[in-house]
Amino acid sequence: MNNRNIQVFQDTVMRLLHRGAQKNLENLIQKSHAVDLAHVIHLMDNDQDKRAVFGLADLQKKAAILQELEIQETLSLIENLEYPHVVEILQRMPSNVVTDIMGQLPRENSDEILKLMEPQGSEVIEELLKYPEDTAGGIMTTEFCALQIDTTVEETIRKLQTELELDHIFYVYVINHGRQLVGVLSLRKLLQAKPQTKIEEIMIPDVIRVKTDTDQEEVAKMVARYNLLALPVVDEENKLVGIITVDDIVDIMREEATEDILKMGGAGDVEISERSSFKSARTRLPWLFISLLGGMIAFKVMSYFQVTLQAAILLAFFVPLMMGMSGNVATQASTIVVSGLSTGKIRVKEIGWILWKELKVGLLFGVVYGVIVGAFANLQYGGTFHNLGLVVGGALVVSMTLAAFIGSILPIVFEKFKIDPVLSTGPFVTTIADIFGIFVYLYLATFIHGVS
Amino acid sequence: MNNRNIQVFQDTVMRLLHRGAQKNLENLIQKSHAVDLAHVIHLMDNDQDKRAVFGLADLQKKAAILQELEIQETLSLIENLEYPHVVEILQRMPSNVVTDIMGQLPRENSDEILKLMEPQGSEVIEELLKYPEDTAGGIMTTEFCALQIDTTVEETIRKLQTELELDHIFYVYVINHGRQLVGVLSLRKLLQAKPQTKIEEIMIPDVIRVKTDTDQEEVAKMVARYNLLALPVVDEENKLVGIITVDDIVDIMREEATEDILKMGGAGDVEISERSSFKSARTRLPWLFISLLGGMIAFKVMSYFQVTLQAAILLAFFVPLMMGMSGNVATQASTIVVSGLSTGKIRVKEIGWILWKELKVGLLFGVVYGVIVGAFANLQYGGTFHNLGLVVGGALVVSMTLAAFIGSILPIVFEKFKIDPVLSTGPFVTTIADIFGIFVYLYLATFIHGVS
Repeated sequence: MNNRNIQVFQDTVMRLLHRGAQKNLENLIQKSHAVDLAHVIHLMDNDQDKRAVFGLADLQKKAAILQELEIQETLSLIENLEYPHVVEILQRMPSNVVTDIMGQLPRENSDEILKLMEPQGSEVIEELLKYPEDTAGGIMTTEFCALQIDTTVEETIRKLQTELELDHIFYVYVINHGRQLVGVLSLRKLLQAKPQTKIEEIMIPDVIRVKTDTDQEEVAKMVARYNLLALPVVDEENKLVGIITVDDIVDIMREEATEDILKMGGAGDVEISERSSFKSARTRLPWLFISLLGGMIAFKVMSYFQVTLQAAILLAFFVPLMMGMSGNVATQASTIVVSGLSTGKIRVKEIGWILWKELKVGLLFGVVYGVIVGAFANLQYGGTFHNLGLVVGGALVVSMTLAAFIGSILPIVFEKFKIDPVLSTGPFVTTIADIFGIFVYLYLATFIHGVS
Repeated sequence: MNNRNIQVFQDTVMRLLHRGAQKNLENLIQKSHAVDLAHVIHLMDNDQDKRAVFGLADLQKKAAILQELEIQETLSLIENLEYPHVVEILQRMPSNVVTDIMGQLPRENSDEILKLMEPQGSEVIEELLKYPEDTAGGIMTTEFCALQIDTTVEETIRKLQTELELDHIFYVYVINHGRQLVGVLSLRKLLQAKPQTKIEEIMIPDVIRVKTDTDQEEVAKMVARYNLLALPVVDEENKLVGIITVDDIVDIMREEATEDILKMGGAGDVEISERSSFKSARTRLPWLFISLLGGMIAFKVMSYFQVTLQAAILLAFFVPLMMGMSGNVATQASTIVVSGLSTGKIRVKEIGWILWKELKVGLLFGVVYGVIVGAFANLQYGGTFHNLGLVVGGALVVSMTLAAFIGSILPIVFEKFKIDPVLSTGPFVTTIADIFGIFVYLYLATFIHGVS
């Protein structure tokens, strides 16, 4: 559903709810997609309404709805339910989502719930809780299909028909008697093979895999690069312990893209839907400190050239322009380098030509805008201030070249020191370029002013 | 393979190539994943080497390699091949990739190739070429599995075993006699059903679908929201004409994330790996124009307050600080609003509280930094300039509040006028906030200076 349809759907749900048309509402919920129901619950203002709608869904749908909601919403929906009911819902959810929920519950509640789960289920969750959240182990699920190497095709198909309760069967993995991952089967191969064939004979032996401690960003890159629907996760001994599915990767990619944009905007890891001004401000405050520091340094630079500025106040009027142009060119350069590095279109080995290219771009910009602004300055104020055009134009040439250089080298330096290079494209690069821009400009002004 | 392994792999390939160890190289290529081969070819400097390695792969692998390369690299690899050979490779590729390649070839070449393709294949491509690139029609493939509503389960499984040449069977779609999409089957349901059952009885009737003209960003959102592996595409008459697979969506999401970051950095749709400084500069030049314009306006604002500045040159030294703080707060606010709108965490209906929250955040920032900087200014220069602390501190309070407001309302205005809101978070918002910051500051200085 798009936003307009969701609105209509929400209105219908609310009307039925407030009219007390329980039976009709139950029918509507029965027929609706869990994703849309989750969306409507998310959009509701009133916690009581949320619980009422959620309460009318069957167990399977409740499980599906909770998977779509944010963790805090999930917790508030289940907090009033009896533990056995919660367990019934959780047992219909993938293990990775259950683990996320358990990790957020107060210890006493999660212990109580784990006790009620089937012993096998609770062991799995306790195992998964050990992995850090942003690693392959932290995002994998344990719902996968793995069969012994000497299983026949006939047995495999029977197992798929009867035993397994998997929503999607992405791939059938093949393991040896030590549970080590040795191969993968496509369903097509399986359907085309003779019934008595052992799966060892039709499997693909080189399986792309990750370790439990692989970073989730690396996992996302591998899934994207190799066009996988699921990626198996193995432990230190190469035993298959879980899979990561492409739909979870899609969610992770969306999260990471949003995070990158927030970092670029100098908003750090602010919670977008945070309603408290105070909390939002606290997360963002440190980022402004960079600008404060930059402003202080710029103050010092300008007071250093006080005599020059005093002699011709006109010079000060060009300071914002110098800052704007330098800051903008530097941000462009750093953004391009960061994007290039993260997409793999630029290799660290190629730093040489990137810097060289950006230097030339900066010079080109400097000359174009230097001539325009310099000519304007000279025409307008050449009478009052001798050589103003030369100062302004020359400063633009030097500072824009320098800004392009700073902008392209900074992300590389960040990368070298293992700091996320996206951070360099935010207030950081602008501030540095601004200060250099002002300094170059006023230095040149003093110099030319001195000799003229 | 990660970057280090790829480096080792590339070195091995190059060594075998330059030693003329054709047989060994052929074996290595045979055993390697097409994605890794494509990566190595992409990293090679020399076109002749690229062609040599590509030439040693078999037809299936050649097709797989070309799918991973950028379109320009693909064209340069096939330009020297005989048409019949090219056709043999293309027939092993998904129709959407073939369409992209055909769209880039000179008309005479693509006509020649289309003529050589089986009549059916060439018709499909000609049909696909009609859709705009960034719509569902432009990214869909025609390799899907669709069966008539009265097919039995037994027949369906036989068809999957024998007729179809699909790499991944994502879903089996069910169509009526008018080729209209009426349902979808999961492979699990299929395997579990009785052989004589008609697929109509076990299909899921409400299939999530898009039209050929749906925008690709909307398509990506639907695939992510509903956790789909493939999304069917229908024409105006609801006839099934193609599918979009999740692996293509993953690629599109990566592209769009990169585009957003470039737009934020004020670099527009620059080609990251563009080696020509001139071309790169030409794409980025217009964005700098915003800063130029902003600089000119700031110039006018400052010259308007010339008398005040002349009387106390010290005031000018705080201009960069005012600009930096206002620009940064505005960028934070607009980034948060843009991210919130695009992830759906903020609804347009909620604009009221967003603006209100940002106003409070801006005020809070203004008070905190206003007190700090104001106190510093008064202690340091209170003797020379009476009430300097009040001017600087007060200006920070007003301009940061204003900047937060501008930053949060601008993306909403952009959205209203159907301009991509990400554009507002770039140089645009900074420039506007800068100018307001300078104006408020100098106005206040003049006012307090006047009365003191």
